[in-house]
Amino acid sequence: MEIHRWVRREILEMAGYQPGEQPADGRPLIKLNTNENPSGPPAAVIEAITAATGAALRLYPEPSSRPVREAAARAYGVEPDQVVVGNGSDDLLTMTLRLFVGPGEVVAAPDPTYTLYAPLTSLQGGSYRAVPWGERLATPVDALAATGAKLIFLTRPNAPTGHAVPLAEVAALCRAAPGVVLLDEAYVDFCHDHGLGLLADHPNLIITRSFSKSLALAGLRVGLAFMAPELAREYHKVRDSYNVNRLSQAGAVAALDNLPAFAPTIARIRTERDRLTQALRNRGFTITPSQANFLLAAIPPASGTGADWVRDLRQAGILVRHFGADPALADALRITIGTPEEMQALVTAVDAILANKSRLS
Amino acid sequence: MEIHRWVRREILEMAGYQPGEQPADGRPLIKLNTNENPSGPPAAVIEAITAATGAALRLYPEPSSRPVREAAARAYGVEPDQVVVGNGSDDLLTMTLRLFVGPGEVVAAPDPTYTLYAPLTSLQGGSYRAVPWGERLATPVDALAATGAKLIFLTRPNAPTGHAVPLAEVAALCRAAPGVVLLDEAYVDFCHDHGLGLLADHPNLIITRSFSKSLALAGLRVGLAFMAPELAREYHKVRDSYNVNRLSQAGAVAALDNLPAFAPTIARIRTERDRLTQALRNRGFTITPSQANFLLAAIPPASGTGADWVRDLRQAGILVRHFGADPALADALRITIGTPEEMQALVTAVDAILANKSRLS
Repeated sequence: MEIHRWVRREILEMAGYQPGEQPADGRPLIKLNTNENPSGPPAAVIEAITAATGAALRLYPEPSSRPVREAAARAYGVEPDQVVVGNGSDDLLTMTLRLFVGPGEVVAAPDPTYTLYAPLTSLQGGSYRAVPWGERLATPVDALAATGAKLIFLTRPNAPTGHAVPLAEVAALCRAAPGVVLLDEAYVDFCHDHGLGLLADHPNLIITRSFSKSLALAGLRVGLAFMAPELAREYHKVRDSYNVNRLSQAGAVAALDNLPAFAPTIARIRTERDRLTQALRNRGFTITPSQANFLLAAIPPASGTGADWVRDLRQAGILVRHFGADPALADALRITIGTPEEMQALVTAVDAILANKSRLS
Repeated sequence: MEIHRWVRREILEMAGYQPGEQPADGRPLIKLNTNENPSGPPAAVIEAITAATGAALRLYPEPSSRPVREAAARAYGVEPDQVVVGNGSDDLLTMTLRLFVGPGEVVAAPDPTYTLYAPLTSLQGGSYRAVPWGERLATPVDALAATGAKLIFLTRPNAPTGHAVPLAEVAALCRAAPGVVLLDEAYVDFCHDHGLGLLADHPNLIITRSFSKSLALAGLRVGLAFMAPELAREYHKVRDSYNVNRLSQAGAVAALDNLPAFAPTIARIRTERDRLTQALRNRGFTITPSQANFLLAAIPPASGTGADWVRDLRQAGILVRHFGADPALADALRITIGTPEEMQALVTAVDAILANKSRLS
């Protein structure tokens, strides 16, 4: 095979993004590794999808997901032509790279952050600059702007740290940036504020949202991007013609029209987040205060390695995320906030692992 | 706004692909413009999707659509690692461009063909070469190979002509091509043969299929690509991590496990296709013999323009596709084969339009 002659060098040389493990349905694992919602979507969403499941599936969906854009406009107080809908927010991130970044152009983001941005940049032939977070995890505004990036990613709340920088830093970054700023708000429903109010003053700002976390629809693949209408018109050129299917559009409209139905779950996750933070601190973990639906937990001193913990927790039936490729995160676990029962099971497993370690040492 | 400084020039300068019109659900139009199936999917597909519509939607789908790849392997006698699943075959076409085509590199296809290939090439910064079909619509093998293309598209049956070149010409093209050949089999279930048997001998061949035509699932967005496992591994690097949602995977598996349930609809479409070919020829249209679920119908001499016909048919409640941007197709209509009742309504409308024209002339 002459694959090396056919495939673009950038792609041959890359390893590809590794998503968190998705065990086959029905396996009795507590899944705290990909920040899904522990509760399913409300009945109104299930009913809307079921109603759309029929002979009309023979027809293409509305190309621009107009019903979803209109529902988002109602829900968030924007105009439908400020909204672009994606097959998950990953689709919107891919569109963003394709829209703004040519070969050799620079993409920048604080480090550490969502690990998809770097491979997306490589795919597009761009050059990715990871700029360390400032003191106390402040946004490194000047250093990011100094990269000359066509595109700067800022995740707020950030993954995997969970912290949310002040909105004033987002605004400062928009002013300083030589190109566009993508504010990734995948986790923002777990935070005390959000950035949609910044759009009016910053034409180079794009804000993305996900239905996969707070809205409990990771399996449906829907994401939203908010921006100036002039930019949205360009996004539609790089969007696949029918990128969001009929059932996803139906479910997304129902979710947006029923946002209050998600509030109890979101409130419970925030309560559990604060309880787990305390419980793990009591056991020697160092926790970054989180505004998201997960914690970044540095393991207790002299308790082995992060990889040891991942293995031991897995043996106890619990999956957590570990970013082994990043030395700065080698001793940290990213733990999704689940149900109270799942959190209790986690704490019990942690106690057993710690007891076993002290017995062996 | 400084959009011109932010957005890549290739995209600013392009118009974007225009898909066929999708009227809002419930409008009483006979939709013969985007080659959908006039029948809905069988009950087994609806039931499988309904069964997957529940709390599990909170979880991400299997990233590589493994259940669909396994079902495709069962259905088509290939290995699961020869299959890549897309969010519609458009998603697979986009991946193909990103995988093989760098800035300035050449993509070629016979002309006319599917109008998406050219804008996808522009998006990727490639250079698109439209090579006219040979005599009697033969594959222009040597002329395509002489372009030096990294990627050659061959649609079989072709859109909008409907003709299917001999498989021997596909094989000859694979041998002559300096890069890879994508054989787009979106319409192949309406044809008398297919190209999967060519894969073993041609490592540079990629074959795509769609669930949007014969399998009556345009609204679900699923496509398949078949190729050598070594190539499939590279596709997975450019694939969005979770590109096919849970409901689409469930519906696709059920469709592949129930292919015989689609046979009656496919047989009826072929029968109607041959009847409509004859009926329109009797009325002065020139029809390319079609192996697809549509006809390319050149309007009768001195009967106005293609645009006139589109407008008159629309007034009669019938949507057909017109490729006004291509002078060679200005007097041709692409007409999807629908139900017997829809075809009768079309012929009645044609008769009324012709009668009106002869009255006015």
